[in-house]
Parts: sequence; structure tokens; C-alpha cells
Amino acid sequence: MADQQDLAEADAAHDSVLDQYPMRGEDGEIRPRFVGMIADAVQQGDSAFLQKIVAELHEADLGDLIEALEPELRPRLVELTGAAFDFSALNEVDDTVREEILEELEPETVAEGVRELDSDDAVELLQDLDEEDKEEILEKLPQSERVALERSFDYPENSAGRRMQTECISVPDNWTALQAIEYMRDTPGLPDRFYEIYVVDRDNRLKGAVPLDALLRARRPGPIMDLADEDRRRVSDHEDIAEVARMFGKYNLVAAPVTDSEDHLVGVITIDDVVDVIEEEADENIKALGGVARDEELSDSVWTIAKSRFNWLLVNLATAFLASAVLGLFEGELQKMVALAVLAPIVASQGGNAATQTMTVAVRALATRELGSNNAWRVVMREGLVGLVNGLAFAAITGVAAAVWFKTSGLGIVIGLAMICNLVAGALGGILIPMALQRLRADPAVASGTFVTTVTDIVGFFAFLGIATMWFGLKS
Amino acid sequence: MADQQDLAEADAAHDSVLDQYPMRGEDGEIRPRFVGMIADAVQQGDSAFLQKIVAELHEADLGDLIEALEPELRPRLVELTGAAFDFSALNEVDDTVREEILEELEPETVAEGVRELDSDDAVELLQDLDEEDKEEILEKLPQSERVALERSFDYPENSAGRRMQTECISVPDNWTALQAIEYMRDTPGLPDRFYEIYVVDRDNRLKGAVPLDALLRARRPGPIMDLADEDRRRVSDHEDIAEVARMFGKYNLVAAPVTDSEDHLVGVITIDDVVDVIEEEADENIKALGGVARDEELSDSVWTIAKSRFNWLLVNLATAFLASAVLGLFEGELQKMVALAVLAPIVASQGGNAATQTMTVAVRALATRELGSNNAWRVVMREGLVGLVNGLAFAAITGVAAAVWFKTSGLGIVIGLAMICNLVAGALGGILIPMALQRLRADPAVASGTFVTTVTDIVGFFAFLGIATMWFGLKS
Repeated sequence: MADQQDLAEADAAHDSVLDQYPMRGEDGEIRPRFVGMIADAVQQGDSAFLQKIVAELHEADLGDLIEALEPELRPRLVELTGAAFDFSALNEVDDTVREEILEELEPETVAEGVRELDSDDAVELLQDLDEEDKEEILEKLPQSERVALERSFDYPENSAGRRMQTECISVPDNWTALQAIEYMRDTPGLPDRFYEIYVVDRDNRLKGAVPLDALLRARRPGPIMDLADEDRRRVSDHEDIAEVARMFGKYNLVAAPVTDSEDHLVGVITIDDVVDVIEEEADENIKALGGVARDEELSDSVWTIAKSRFNWLLVNLATAFLASAVLGLFEGELQKMVALAVLAPIVASQGGNAATQTMTVAVRALATRELGSNNAWRVVMREGLVGLVNGLAFAAITGVAAAVWFKTSGLGIVIGLAMICNLVAGALGGILIPMALQRLRADPAVASGTFVTTVTDIVGFFAFLGIATMWFGLKS
Repeated sequence: MADQQDLAEADAAHDSVLDQYPMRGEDGEIRPRFVGMIADAVQQGDSAFLQKIVAELHEADLGDLIEALEPELRPRLVELTGAAFDFSALNEVDDTVREEILEELEPETVAEGVRELDSDDAVELLQDLDEEDKEEILEKLPQSERVALERSFDYPENSAGRRMQTECISVPDNWTALQAIEYMRDTPGLPDRFYEIYVVDRDNRLKGAVPLDALLRARRPGPIMDLADEDRRRVSDHEDIAEVARMFGKYNLVAAPVTDSEDHLVGVITIDDVVDVIEEEADENIKALGGVARDEELSDSVWTIAKSRFNWLLVNLATAFLASAVLGLFEGELQKMVALAVLAPIVASQGGNAATQTMTVAVRALATRELGSNNAWRVVMREGLVGLVNGLAFAAITGVAAAVWFKTSGLGIVIGLAMICNLVAGALGGILIPMALQRLRADPAVASGTFVTTVTDIVGFFAFLGIATMWFGLKS
């Protein structure tokens, strides 16, 4: 906890508070002492001090600080710092945290904050609010800004149009480079940071893009169109943002113009948005493979999380009962030879793990588009062979171990054969199931796991107990 | 397959071959017909045609094309196209493919190609080669370029120094903005694309960074230092590249200067490198969670893959035997009541799935630094509660199902109690094991899965059979 003296000293020094009381320790984690100091200041309503801090912090750090505060202090921090508070910091926190804060604040306060934001940040800030709350805030905005934001909200959620920034610099195609430079120099209110400017015709149709370095290096009297790259990769406003991110990654872009169906320039997508999308996609992929909802966040409540995970577990329970039903078919045999009951889970588990390896590779390769129709057959063959090779290896190891354990050589042969069957089945299931799901336009990451382990559980139990029944003549 | 006429027509048209014969179909996949046309041209040694194609293709597309060709045609394509071939395309293909091609080519050819590359691309191209092959190529380079590359290779593999581009634009701190602009305009051989320039003192110590838009918008007579951002986030040359990528993502950077321990400017990291790193990290995370080696690639051979996956499966086999040993402890009870053998896998599997959900969230949150010491306790509590809530829910469902299936209500109570134990144990294991591994400086993504499912298998079997033994008094 920070005491009053800390604050007084910091105030007195009159220079950077952050230099004196750094937010993060050596390891990059936020110092609890710093959070304590801010919490105290919020509780005491020390606007002057908080405004200073907030002005010095990068929006990303401000977001981290907000998450570190107790929920009830968060909206108060925003209110106490007023115009010094950069609302884009709220885009750096979990969705639930953001919504809680926005619901606490007056619509006027939010509207004031929104006005300072670039359009893409404003859209991100408001998009998850209830229609009603959103309306209330939009009403407080000046007409032109409201209309612009509403246009963005009209685009589908994961489209380029929804994610783009509508502020971008465009110049007429009959200008010279010098005119463009003077325009940038003399026009207030242009976007903060930009990497290229766009050339449009009189109907605002995109003619080309000029990277800033080309503009800087150019002999200035020439026409701007001489510098424009007319083949510039552009993004259609309805394109899926994940597709756009792949294009950025592939062609190393930092910005791309967004055009509507008639080629009008409507905005720009920049690399920082794309980095967010790439991280979100990876995050969703990993969560989907782990059976967790895409939008689960660390700040969600116990109840929300338990509910959302329940569904997936329920599907798994059904498949587990299905696998057990296979065991149930062999009840008589299990009773005659209880070693089978002890060993059966090994066959199922080994198959499940091998299948998960294959499935992970397949899901990932489908997501990155490395696996497509031109190499599908080769990859399926390869996975099948890998399953066979490892099936043989583990048949030997498991066979010997089982034979020694239960002093029955026949048991070793039976489990070995079952292992080969199940590792090949697992490999084929691991690759074919994600490919089939992809073809059916389902997300392979979400559903593959359940299907794949169902296959290996059922094949594992069936192969092991079926072969055992034949080998030992257990059938009565 | 393309026939001769195709080629003749394409040649005759004298304009873009790609417009006539697009490489990709509507869906973005490479057209087999296009690959066939290129394969024919390589076999016939048609350099003129191939040079045209290669010059028109973006390096990323050229990389995809190379991967689509039969292995023996790949180095021949490079040889036939000579100076028109952009070696950075080889950084877009799988490591194994790249190495095969580089080993086939003459060192002189590779050295010629390397000379055209930016330093970071050259390092990436050569870094996985044998020391000997690398030396042979480096020897063919002019002294200054060789020394520069060797300096990059001296940095550790995942450091900023290894990944940075040594070519960057720096100007003395006593220049004016106008001088800087004129320097950029008049100096040939500057990097192709750049977003900011750096200001250094006479000892090459970094004084600040000037974004290009600031330079363009500035009144030019002023000193360059007036435009420089002195607090610019910089990267130390030995910093881990994953850390750098996190910083870029967090603070929305497009470029950052790299400095050595004495603050000398040694290079620049740009966002395109960072996007690659983010994608690699996500890829490795997903693979690690699926039990696949980080460097496994779609073009690896059956044997390479089988070997690398074998190790992980072996660990899993050991844990599966461990779990079965628990079953073995209850052999007598299983024989007396075979329903226990049929139902035990359900308890284990449901616990394993719940634990995997928790583990996925934990591993991801550790990777993104969302989970740290200041919220660890809260998250552990939350996961434990989620486990309890879902444990209760599935205790009810599974209990009723088991009681109905085997017409024994006691069995329902036993499996229900075991389910609660195992889901709570799974939840705690799923969060505590990754956190412990992280603290031990092991990668939680790699090892957590095995430990976590071992916990749920053992706890599941033990709880279920132990409670059953007590309930039914099966112990003899």
C-alpha cells in the first residue's frame, strides 16, 4: 500500500510520476504497490494526480492497470481523469470488464471519449454493448460522426468493413506529389500515424496507393499518379477479416485500402488491427482444440464459464458412454479374464494420443491453408504410414509389457495387434475427420477432437476385446 | 497438363503471362494446370518463359509454386531463372524443402542470390544449413557482406539480433529535416520499404526515431532532432524475439530500433518479421499442446515424423500403464462386479476432458502474460469452483445413467461421487500444473497435457473403484 507521503512526493517532484514510481517491476509484471497507490488516489478522488498518471501511460498499460484495479474503482478512475483518459485503453481490457465499465459511466462521458477515437477503435469499443446502450451513446455524438459509426456497424461482425479505420488520407489523381505533401502538412485532424496515402478519382474510386517513403524520395514536381502503385492489393469491405490477416501475413503488408463493390475507397486496414486478428485467431484455434468457447475470458464469472464448458463436456460424456457400451458388449469376456479390463484403457488412450497428434497437425495446416486439395492425398497416406510405423513400435513395447505383467504371452499378441489397428485408425481419423469437417464448412478445430477420440476409444476397445475373444476362445 | 500451344500463346502475347494463366483459382488454391505448365517448362529448359513468370510472381506466391513442384524440379527452376529468381521466396517454403534446394545448388548460385537479399532474409535463408555448407556460401560473398552476416550469426538463435535487418536509415543528430530528406532522395541502395528513420550521435548511439509521416508533415528547415521521439521503445539485441513480438503487439509498433549494450544502433526489427514470429509462436503453442514437435512440417518424411512423435507417445504409454496399474489394484473387485470395469473409463475420460479445458485456458493465459502472480490465486479458485459446479452437474447425469443402465442405484451414487472428485482434481491439476511448470522454467504447453491426464486417469480410477469398494463392501 502506498501512503500519503508517496503521493505528496510524486506531486512535488513536478516531473514524470512514472519515472519515480514505475508501473512495472523488472519482470514486466505490474507492481502491487503501484496498483495500491492508484487505488488510494481513486478512493481519495485525487483527480490531478490521476490525470498526470493517465496522461503518461500508454493506452495498453492503462488497460492493464484498469484490469488490476478492483471492479468498483474502474469507472471512477475514468470519471476522475476526464478528458485525460484515453478511451482506447478500454479496448485493451477483457470484454466483460469493458462492458461493466461502460455501463457504469454516463452516456455523455462515453460519447466524449468516443469522439477522440479513430473510427475502428470507436467501433470496437461500442460493438458489444446492448442495442439500447449503444443508441444512447450514439445519440450524444454529432450527426456526422454518428452516421459514420452507424455505417460501420452495418457491416457484418468479422468483415473488413467493420474492422477498418474510415479515416485515411486520399488525394485526387490530378494532383502533383508536391500538392499531396502540402496537403498533409497543412491539414489539421489527419490520422495520427499512417504509412501510405491513396489516390482517388473524382468519384472517390481508388486509383492507387503511394507509400510514404516513395513520396519522400520522389522528385516533387511530378504527378502523384507516377508514384502510385496501381496493382496494390486491396481489400473488399465484405471480406472476412481472417482472410485479410492471412493476406497481410503472406505479402508482408502494413496497410491496405478497403473498397466497396464499386471500387470506392471506404477505409484502410492497418497492420496493428491485423496483428490483433492474428492473435485472436490463434487464441480461438487453441481454445477450440481444448474444448473451450472462443470468447471465454479470464475475467468471466464461475457460472458463465461452467455453463459454457458444460456443453462440450456433455458431448464428451455421450461419446464416453458409447465407448463404454462397447466394453459392455464384452461383459462376459471381461469377467472371465479381468486382465482385459485392466489393459483396455491403454489401447484406447494410446490411440487417442496418436490421433490427437495427427489431428493437431491437420487442423493447423487447414487453418494456415498449407493443407489443400493438391496435397491432401499425400498427407493422408503419410499419416496412415506414420500410424502404422508407430503402431508396430508400440505393439512390440506394449505386447512385451502386457505379457510380462500378466504372465500370458497370448495377451501380448492380442494387445499388440489391437495397438496396430488403433494407431492406424487414429491416424486416419485424425486427418480425415478435420478434412471432412472443413469440407462441410464446419470449423475443424471445434469438433474434431470429440469425433477423433470417439473413433479411437471405440476401435481400441472393439479391436482389443474382439481379438482377445477370438484368440482365447472366450465366447461362451 | 499444359501443352506446347499454351506456352507459345503466352509467349506471343508479350504481356503478363499471369493475367492469361492465373496461378490461383477462385478459391485461392493453386491451379494444377498452372503447376503442370511450369513443370513442363522446367523440363524443357525454357528459361525465357520461366524468367518472365518468376519476375511477375510475388515471393510468397513463388514459394507456394516451388512447394507445389516435384522435388527434383525445384532446384532446376532456380537455375533456369538465374538473376530473375528472388531468393527470399525460399524463406516462404518449409525448412526441409529449402535445405534440399540449397544443397542441390552451386554455392556460387546461392551466394549470388544472397547478395540481393536484406540481411534478415539472408540470415533466415542460411541459418539452418550445415556449418560447412554455410561456410562455402559465405566464402563466395564480398568481405563486407560476409562479415555483416557472420556478425548476425553470432547472436543466439531466437534473439532480436538474429532476426533484425541490419540495413536501416540513420542520420546524424546535427542534421536538419531537409538534409535527411535529401539524403533519402539521393542515396541509392537504401532499404526498399521503411517506416521510420533513426537519429544517431557521432558514435552511432541512438538518439531518437522519426516516423516518416512526421518528417513529411514537418516544416523542413528545422533540426531533425525536433522531430525525433527520444523515448522511442527500443529493443536490445539479445532480447528474446517472442518478447519483442509481444511488445509490438501491445504497443502497436511497426518498427523498432535494435541497440547493443552500449546503445549503438545495430539494426531494425520490422512488423513483417514480428508477424512471422507471432504466427510461429501460435503454431508452436498449438503443436506443443497436441504433443507434436515444434518443428514438424508438412513436408517431413514418414520416418522423421514417426520418430519425433514416438517419444511423446512413449511418455503417454508409461502414464497409461500407471493408470492401468491402479485398475490392477482392484482386480478382485472388477471381477466381482464387471460393471465397474465398463464404467471406470467414463470417469477418467470426463475428468481428462474437463482438465484439458482448464489447462488450455491456463497455458494460453500464461503465454499471453494474462495470468501472473497478481491474479493466480483468484484464477485457481475460480477453476476449482468451475470444476465443482460441473462435477455436481455430471455427477447427477452420469449417476442416473449408470444406475439405469446397470439397474443398481448404488452404482449411480458411487460414480457420481467419483465424478465430483475427478472434476475438481482435474480443474486444480489443469491450472496448477501449467503454473508450476512455468515457475520451473519449463514450457507449460509441452508437458502439461501428459501430467494433467495422468492425474485425472489415476484419480478417476482410484476414486471410482475405491468408493465402490467401500460402498459395496467388495473387499474380500
